[in-house]
Amino acid sequence: MKIYKLNATDGAARTGEVATPHGIIRTPAFMPVGTQATVKGMHPEAVRETGADVVLGNTYHLMLRPGAERVAALGGLHKFMNWPHVILTDSGGFQVMSLSAMRKIDENAVTFRSHIDGSTHVLTPERAIEIQTLLGSDIVMQLDECVRLPAERAEVEKAMRLSLRWAERCQRAFAPVRDGRSLFAIVQGGDDVALREESARELNAMDFPGYAIGGLAVGEPQEVMLRMLEVVAPLLPADKPRYLMGVGTPDDLLKAVARGIDMFDCVMPTRNGRHGLAFSRFGPINLKNARHADDPRPFDEESPCAAARTYSRAYLHHLTKTNEMLGAILLTTINIAYYQELMAGARAAIAAKAFASFADGVAAGWAAGDLPTR
Amino acid sequence: MKIYKLNATDGAARTGEVATPHGIIRTPAFMPVGTQATVKGMHPEAVRETGADVVLGNTYHLMLRPGAERVAALGGLHKFMNWPHVILTDSGGFQVMSLSAMRKIDENAVTFRSHIDGSTHVLTPERAIEIQTLLGSDIVMQLDECVRLPAERAEVEKAMRLSLRWAERCQRAFAPVRDGRSLFAIVQGGDDVALREESARELNAMDFPGYAIGGLAVGEPQEVMLRMLEVVAPLLPADKPRYLMGVGTPDDLLKAVARGIDMFDCVMPTRNGRHGLAFSRFGPINLKNARHADDPRPFDEESPCAAARTYSRAYLHHLTKTNEMLGAILLTTINIAYYQELMAGARAAIAAKAFASFADGVAAGWAAGDLPTR
Repeated sequence: MKIYKLNATDGAARTGEVATPHGIIRTPAFMPVGTQATVKGMHPEAVRETGADVVLGNTYHLMLRPGAERVAALGGLHKFMNWPHVILTDSGGFQVMSLSAMRKIDENAVTFRSHIDGSTHVLTPERAIEIQTLLGSDIVMQLDECVRLPAERAEVEKAMRLSLRWAERCQRAFAPVRDGRSLFAIVQGGDDVALREESARELNAMDFPGYAIGGLAVGEPQEVMLRMLEVVAPLLPADKPRYLMGVGTPDDLLKAVARGIDMFDCVMPTRNGRHGLAFSRFGPINLKNARHADDPRPFDEESPCAAARTYSRAYLHHLTKTNEMLGAILLTTINIAYYQELMAGARAAIAAKAFASFADGVAAGWAAGDLPTR
Repeated sequence: MKIYKLNATDGAARTGEVATPHGIIRTPAFMPVGTQATVKGMHPEAVRETGADVVLGNTYHLMLRPGAERVAALGGLHKFMNWPHVILTDSGGFQVMSLSAMRKIDENAVTFRSHIDGSTHVLTPERAIEIQTLLGSDIVMQLDECVRLPAERAEVEKAMRLSLRWAERCQRAFAPVRDGRSLFAIVQGGDDVALREESARELNAMDFPGYAIGGLAVGEPQEVMLRMLEVVAPLLPADKPRYLMGVGTPDDLLKAVARGIDMFDCVMPTRNGRHGLAFSRFGPINLKNARHADDPRPFDEESPCAAARTYSRAYLHHLTKTNEMLGAILLTTINIAYYQELMAGARAAIAAKAFASFADGVAAGWAAGDLPTR
């Protein structure tokens, strides 16, 4: 199944379209994270208005609450969360590692205790596919084992090999229930070039419709992450989408796009928005800082986002200092809109063969910093 | 200054319009509470879409954060919170009683410690007017002393008399800064008929453009509150608006409208919305209840509120159980919309001389309870 249309390249950077049952993803694309069937603090219509083509749902959270069978009985995740556009779900593996109270991995499955009530759950590759099929997601991720870095090579190697075997089992389980949807494999291998190469080659041979790069942004320096992208991306087929999981800062995104990545997801814009931090063409801005208290200027009068143009910095400061929900709502919106603006700019720049100067211009804006205090 | 236009009556119930510098309030009116310059969890545009003509701001909160002088320097409260419609502010007296860490009242002022940082503040009647003028509110409330019930008659009487003297001082302070805005006096007197009558008569003689009834819904049974309304409302001039402060449930509102009240404010729809409780034509509904977990039906398919028609009960249940912000956002919206729907219904019914049957019909819906479980 061919789902990716490559529209233009500029160096290693690419722009294209990923086709799914619920619409097209324009790439490079940032996917806001809708952990528990909601992008925290935003109406789904507002998420769409920022320019998002796709949101990510978390299998780990959704299997625990409200439960995949329940979502299926209610008509699937799209209907449940009132998001009629594209949904990608992860496989649960990453959250099991980072959130569950206890976990045990063997050849067959990962067994873990819920961080909510301590109940025991077993996630096999087959069950991960079943859950994502019940949710009805357009892009399904294989179950994998993700290792936090730094780690011993033996541990990374073992996890990568297990992930390869689980990729095969996921592919077998997915084939009969595919129904136009896509299963992506996940390249693992930590910060080890040889392991990354092996993982990419093996998965490539298995012919998935799309490939993710997992196990990065898990503690390693940015330069290590970028080096891994330089190793892995050229090994992945040019006619298939490449998704860098759980990344990252705006700077991470532009540098990964320059290395041939098409898709991203990250909680940074939503989580930071809830804590008073806004991303912008001026770089990151902490609205809790007292220097904003008397500033009547809008957050960014040139932003395409109405919230950024409408509300004063003084008001955003007030809302964040008083922990008002509207502060989290507005800053989340501003952040998601900024990430989308960045991806839209990247797409246009790649199409115009001007990605490097676009990225340089954006970085220069960040380096110049915020507006001078009045 | 004449600000009220009486359009129709039905028994003691009235419908009319209150004119202010930022527009008309259609009465009976419910004013959502925007405590800290935001109706918690809602964009101001969304508040407006529910049909609200006016929001209430709290002097106590705003004087502490962000500070009245700061709001004035930023262009006033309307601009600060992006609400270009009518704003009524209370005087701070009630919150000083209910929130501050320490308070001391004498003839001149109430002195209190902030519940945020323990700092000491002095609120005189003149300062209460100054703060509300700095905020730029359209309807300004006198400073009063509000006593929690039950209370000794002597205490209630003393507070009522002090409130009368403070009404006079507020009136003197307000005259030179009026600028088309209005100052409302507050009838006090607890649950004592004679004290309520004295307060209403004295304030009436002082000729304010509007009158509030304060010191109710502070611990007394509903029948006591309604009895006080029956005593006070007929003593207030028919050509001026009457505002029952801090009330109440949907049932309180309809019964108070039947007794001649025009305006209300209350945190119930917003606060309860944040805790999973929705008001509706079926009565109050606790979305945290497990019976909603598998219910695909919208909250209320006949509601004029899009949120009530769009999202399933199962989804609202999921959001409230997982403490997702969107749950608070949607239920707050549904509740404010229901309060506005109720007031719009009351206005139409009074104009059609059919208020009693309207109120009976609404009460019958509440008594019938929620939709049968599927």
